[in-house]
Amino acid sequence: MSFHDKYEYIISKNNSLVCVGLDSDITKLPDIFKQNENPQFEFNKAIVDATNDLVSSYKPNPAFYEARGAKGIKELKMTCDYIKGIYPDVPIIIDAKRGDIGNTNEGYASYVFDYYDADAITVMPYMGIESLSSFFNRAGRGVIVGCHSSNSGAKEFQELKIDEKPLYQYVAEEIMKQHGDNPNAMMFMGATYPEQLTEIRKIVGDMTFLVPGIGSQGGDVEKTIKSGLNSKNAGLIINSSRSIIFASSGNDFAEKAREETEKLRVQINQYR
Amino acid sequence: MSFHDKYEYIISKNNSLVCVGLDSDITKLPDIFKQNENPQFEFNKAIVDATNDLVSSYKPNPAFYEARGAKGIKELKMTCDYIKGIYPDVPIIIDAKRGDIGNTNEGYASYVFDYYDADAITVMPYMGIESLSSFFNRAGRGVIVGCHSSNSGAKEFQELKIDEKPLYQYVAEEIMKQHGDNPNAMMFMGATYPEQLTEIRKIVGDMTFLVPGIGSQGGDVEKTIKSGLNSKNAGLIINSSRSIIFASSGNDFAEKAREETEKLRVQINQYR
Repeated sequence: MSFHDKYEYIISKNNSLVCVGLDSDITKLPDIFKQNENPQFEFNKAIVDATNDLVSSYKPNPAFYEARGAKGIKELKMTCDYIKGIYPDVPIIIDAKRGDIGNTNEGYASYVFDYYDADAITVMPYMGIESLSSFFNRAGRGVIVGCHSSNSGAKEFQELKIDEKPLYQYVAEEIMKQHGDNPNAMMFMGATYPEQLTEIRKIVGDMTFLVPGIGSQGGDVEKTIKSGLNSKNAGLIINSSRSIIFASSGNDFAEKAREETEKLRVQINQYR
Repeated sequence: MSFHDKYEYIISKNNSLVCVGLDSDITKLPDIFKQNENPQFEFNKAIVDATNDLVSSYKPNPAFYEARGAKGIKELKMTCDYIKGIYPDVPIIIDAKRGDIGNTNEGYASYVFDYYDADAITVMPYMGIESLSSFFNRAGRGVIVGCHSSNSGAKEFQELKIDEKPLYQYVAEEIMKQHGDNPNAMMFMGATYPEQLTEIRKIVGDMTFLVPGIGSQGGDVEKTIKSGLNSKNAGLIINSSRSIIFASSGNDFAEKAREETEKLRVQINQYR
């Protein structure tokens, strides 16, 4: 099933736009995982078991696993295998932010779509949308291109104006031009810039956005939903990572993660 | 020793600006590695043993290892350990083209500078130079920021004009502004765009450039050297990957790789 169809199904089944970010930094895991043989996997398993009926997707960021080398990679693979085995309806987005030239991107496409067998990947546009064809050529897989990021430095280049139009809008237009007919082509838009979200929604119609920046980063839920919803009252993948998975550092971490996920799900739905 | 000092030493010792790209795509390795337990490592070992006295650096692109998951990562780690153990004078550049926001980049910095213990990394600027502080904060490590890439799609965004000045020049100026006093701050500039190389040399003084795109991608050696040399007759890391490591697919692959490396070394030096 394509990412798009899988996503449409799960947001209806779970009545949720919440994407839980599995940014399972080993230095921040609860003490009970300190002696565990596969700490990142076991932590993720507990989080997934506690939240799967409340989410639209899981989004592991590979940086937190690659930091540990082959061991971390293996635990992220175990995490993906577990989700796909037990909760096959829930899509997995690998937040890899990759972007190289053609033949090299084939390697990254294999890493994400073959090794992890994930449903979608985040990629970066600086080398041109043309450079990303290895990802877009994978039929049915989701490709989420960075448009406007959530950090303060986002403005340095993304908001530079080319004939009155900021760079991030050029990026959005180029994605529409090259992949506008592909429902699995998406973009990410930081929740910390709601005005930019409004602008981009005007340019790309009903395209789905991954929206990071809610929670620890300070993005406002009401503004994000009101600025970003598409004509079908959806089109958003609202991510929260640390605020959910590290809501408690005690033995009740999974229970608290569930509570935070449910709180965000309800809060989002109240503005839809 | 810092990347800068290590690089200055090796280019003088080996009289070479050649960087050999260890893009050791498993599907392209000679048949003799088909039954090998660690094919990518054993291939790299043979290439490194055959070329180490002719090079300025090695540049593995992790995409070709990550494609195999934990197994490939382990073999890239073995490759880095081997180079650092036997040829400690030769710097290793991990061509990761990473770029995320602050806390996430800490994970990538650990991956490259702790796990692989590499001397330098390539990173991407779309999220702003501010976002790259996790890399720049690693004293002595080389940080090579993407400025103008070698692919045809490079023009899509990198050459968009902001008040007459193309984006890639803004990127170069911002790197100068934020890290101009750090000799380990560098940029990469594709060899397929020599005019842009000339422009950027004017902006950044003696800064060192990693220059991919020679060889299979069609970059011209003479134009690259004449456009890119700094005032010290150096400041370039000239990369060639496939043209060297896959010069032969037979049992003489290492011997042919040495021949190609020497040919490029001499060719470069004739224009210095």
